[in-house]
Amino acid sequence: MQNHRSGCPVSVSLEVFGDKWSLLIVRDLMVRGLRTFREFERSGEGIATNILADRLRKLEAAGIITAEAEETDGRRCNYRLTQKGIDLAPVLLELLIWGARHEETGAPCALILQMEKNREKVIEEARRRWRDRDSTPLLPKFADQGERKKKR
Amino acid sequence: MQNHRSGCPVSVSLEVFGDKWSLLIVRDLMVRGLRTFREFERSGEGIATNILADRLRKLEAAGIITAEAEETDGRRCNYRLTQKGIDLAPVLLELLIWGARHEETGAPCALILQMEKNREKVIEEARRRWRDRDSTPLLPKFADQGERKKKR
Repeated sequence: MQNHRSGCPVSVSLEVFGDKWSLLIVRDLMVRGLRTFREFERSGEGIATNILADRLRKLEAAGIITAEAEETDGRRCNYRLTQKGIDLAPVLLELLIWGARHEETGAPCALILQMEKNREKVIEEARRRWRDRDSTPLLPKFADQGERKKKR
Repeated sequence: MQNHRSGCPVSVSLEVFGDKWSLLIVRDLMVRGLRTFREFERSGEGIATNILADRLRKLEAAGIITAEAEETDGRRCNYRLTQKGIDLAPVLLELLIWGARHEETGAPCALILQMEKNREKVIEEARRRWRDRDSTPLLPKFADQGERKKKR
């Protein structure tokens, strides 16, 4: 158990994530169905290899993800959220709703409104996919800024 | 409007906060009733003065907080959450619940369970205090680790 200076659960949570890259890895695992180092590296956020390795190590040490051998090829390693990791689903959902409402993003407004109305169903579906090891993406990869400009 | 590289609202939200200090300032404003530079500085998380000044500036530029003159003393400056800032209440609540469930914190378990059952009421009460400029703390400052050890 890591020692925390502050007694506030918000502060402690933020100490555990450390920075935005950690939560983006959790997002990739939770809603995009990504599982391998290579997939995270190519997920489009431009994370540097050394930072990715560091954050995976920290998330594993914090008990948020685990590494397990690929069933069909024991040499390959897949990452998976733990129970503690999937319990971050409500935090991610609220970040998604807030970002889509207040910033310019690539998320379609109708989709976000629907998720906002059905918070519990969205979270339950994320949990179900996690339990069933169903890696079908729950959300698409939203268009990045460059792609959105091209569409105009 | 800031330009964001990623189209994902989660990524965009995390770009806006930048790091844990930003969300702790939002927490201090939202649930602890703190309003001034000096109060944030003394809130017990050990934030350095230059980091505090930088994060206040960034939060203001992102439209999450505003600075306003103190009514009784126009030379003094108080910070206040904007609508965009108070809309972070669900994110903070989920971070609080997650941290209290999975990490060792100073938050009493009964209080957290009660908040978990009454998510919407807690968020509505945070919004009401914000609207009414009621700076009564919504949550106490939880005992830090040193204080918890002394109690044992």
